[in-house]
Amino acid sequence: MLNFEYYNPTKIIFGKETQNQIGDLVKAYGGNRVLLHYGGSSAKKSGVYDQVMRALKESGLTVFELGGVKPNPRVSLIREGVTLCKQEGIDFIVALGGGSVIDSAKGIAAGSYYDGDVWDFYMKKAPVGQALPIGVILTIPAAGSETSAGSVVTNEEGHYKRDCQGETLIPKFAVLNPQLCFTLPDYQVSAGVSDILAHVMERYFTNTEHVDLTDRLCEATMRTVIQNVRLVRENKENYDAWAEIMWAGTIAHNNLLGTGREQDWGSHNIEHELSAEYDIAHGAGLAIIFPAWMKYVYRENIHRFVQFAVRVWDVDFACERPEEIVLEGIRRMEGFFRSIGMPVRLSEAGIGEDRFEQMAEKACMFGSIGGFKKLSEQDIVEIFRIAR
Amino acid sequence: MLNFEYYNPTKIIFGKETQNQIGDLVKAYGGNRVLLHYGGSSAKKSGVYDQVMRALKESGLTVFELGGVKPNPRVSLIREGVTLCKQEGIDFIVALGGGSVIDSAKGIAAGSYYDGDVWDFYMKKAPVGQALPIGVILTIPAAGSETSAGSVVTNEEGHYKRDCQGETLIPKFAVLNPQLCFTLPDYQVSAGVSDILAHVMERYFTNTEHVDLTDRLCEATMRTVIQNVRLVRENKENYDAWAEIMWAGTIAHNNLLGTGREQDWGSHNIEHELSAEYDIAHGAGLAIIFPAWMKYVYRENIHRFVQFAVRVWDVDFACERPEEIVLEGIRRMEGFFRSIGMPVRLSEAGIGEDRFEQMAEKACMFGSIGGFKKLSEQDIVEIFRIAR
Repeated sequence: MLNFEYYNPTKIIFGKETQNQIGDLVKAYGGNRVLLHYGGSSAKKSGVYDQVMRALKESGLTVFELGGVKPNPRVSLIREGVTLCKQEGIDFIVALGGGSVIDSAKGIAAGSYYDGDVWDFYMKKAPVGQALPIGVILTIPAAGSETSAGSVVTNEEGHYKRDCQGETLIPKFAVLNPQLCFTLPDYQVSAGVSDILAHVMERYFTNTEHVDLTDRLCEATMRTVIQNVRLVRENKENYDAWAEIMWAGTIAHNNLLGTGREQDWGSHNIEHELSAEYDIAHGAGLAIIFPAWMKYVYRENIHRFVQFAVRVWDVDFACERPEEIVLEGIRRMEGFFRSIGMPVRLSEAGIGEDRFEQMAEKACMFGSIGGFKKLSEQDIVEIFRIAR
Repeated sequence: MLNFEYYNPTKIIFGKETQNQIGDLVKAYGGNRVLLHYGGSSAKKSGVYDQVMRALKESGLTVFELGGVKPNPRVSLIREGVTLCKQEGIDFIVALGGGSVIDSAKGIAAGSYYDGDVWDFYMKKAPVGQALPIGVILTIPAAGSETSAGSVVTNEEGHYKRDCQGETLIPKFAVLNPQLCFTLPDYQVSAGVSDILAHVMERYFTNTEHVDLTDRLCEATMRTVIQNVRLVRENKENYDAWAEIMWAGTIAHNNLLGTGREQDWGSHNIEHELSAEYDIAHGAGLAIIFPAWMKYVYRENIHRFVQFAVRVWDVDFACERPEEIVLEGIRRMEGFFRSIGMPVRLSEAGIGEDRFEQMAEKACMFGSIGGFKKLSEQDIVEIFRIAR
């Protein structure tokens, strides 16, 4: 196990009707002039936008709003938010939505204390410093951004998707009410689950030895998600199954599961190029990239992939046939993704072969990627080919 | 799953040589006049006392000290610490030790802002309010007090062992260096592991339905501890195995594993009477009480005990023989405790039958105990009888 620091101070408020506490929560954290940041019509259609707006106003807060966050959130809207926060002296941001809204809110929070262009943080030209405090009301379990220090944003000029990190970006609180997931469309449910699993797998595949506890915590989280997504697809209003997925989605990415171990994140980096280029759902992109990545890298540490197959996918262990076990594990994972409506090949998402080199080059803009196996541009092109 | 709040802001600094960061850590949290609180000779013999004292002084802090904390920490020493903190204007407490030292430090921290007698908190006569900030350097993985809000203390006048809880008692940071465990005596290692397992089991045995994720996280933590304690008993300097146990000990009790579920804590309450009366190690008492408690209550929710036997103790599942499976699980647990040198019967700890009623009465001082099954005085006497 490696030395590590772990710090996750986000207060979780979990359960039915918890969004109605939002006014008191914001006030408890010193908010007064609040920006309500959200996406599109779904929050309004489901009624949660009205509930939250009412709760904020009933608490005597001055509320500003900025909607219109799109999946793969754009830096242009963040710039707009930064201007608004500076002009209006906003002191707290409430992010109502999923990872895109939260990541957009984080960009605004960091940009509001910065004189330059907020994109600088994402291009590593400036470190994230002071930021406005953020509270989250989560409506899509997926990105894990509700307790993480990271923000992933797309710059539409040039199809760049980049992240920035900063302890000041960790939300002060996150309201998780599984009821808010009942209205999610099937595809978004599955893409979210794919993202959650990917967050665990990026941590699970490591060359660090002696990480028994976090291995097992990872496996526990993956098994829970795999089992419960079937239940919510059968019945969208299965509160308890949603509760499992929602809490798992947070734990998958609050970095508990990554403590003391080298992590990978190669597949995420590759996927970011894919969704920046083709604007597909991040989770769908991950369901395509991960199996291909696995097939390309498993020989680096075959025992870890055997453990994954046996403990997560219940492949029967047989000491003499490790490779067979690994491939059966990957097959079962692909079968699982297909069973929840995710593509597992580029062709299934309508993506051709013409931009492999271009995406690989962008992925390696800052050098080779991945921790489990360092990937060069050529490696990434190979992974895209396997994913065809 | 039940609605819940989860908040655990303790910063974890984990790994080799991390105790040398103590001066910088205390300063980062605003400390200036520091009380170093510790136990007996073991911290001095191992050298960690000198390292910590040096690191604190080199950072320019003014250091006061109060040693002498005993297992099952006494309120009399806490009173002494409170007086010292008030007299000297101490603004930060460093607890160097295991659960007893940390719990004692928490008592001092709470008492330093209170005009009455600190025992009031433990008798629920006053709620815990403001408290001095605490930082921990952990030397015994067991109690989980390094990130918890609770403190358990013994009042030697009358053999009372009671707890108090308060968000202000959560340590600001916890330094976890597995190297500091190398010098622990065998018995203390095993008693610590028994305590860790008990913290998980108090949460695991619940009647709350649909708690898949936390069930699996509990099982992951228990399996890790069970596996790794064998390794540290074989080789006291097995850093990696200690790292697993140490991190598991914290996770077992930071309440992540108890989120969204009713918890039990009956066995802990019973054990507190046992160790208050006979001054045996808390972990040893738990190894005695838990099997007896299980045998007394398993019929309340046999499926949960089947799951425990199958998933934690690898008992072969057989749908037609649940009771057999449960009892085999308990037998394997007893076998495990015996294999690490823990008593599993009162007689093995030299405890007779003469005070069952008296301890049961004290355990029920505030009413019936336990969440999985409410236990009356008579129930507790029965459990003691099974434990003979």
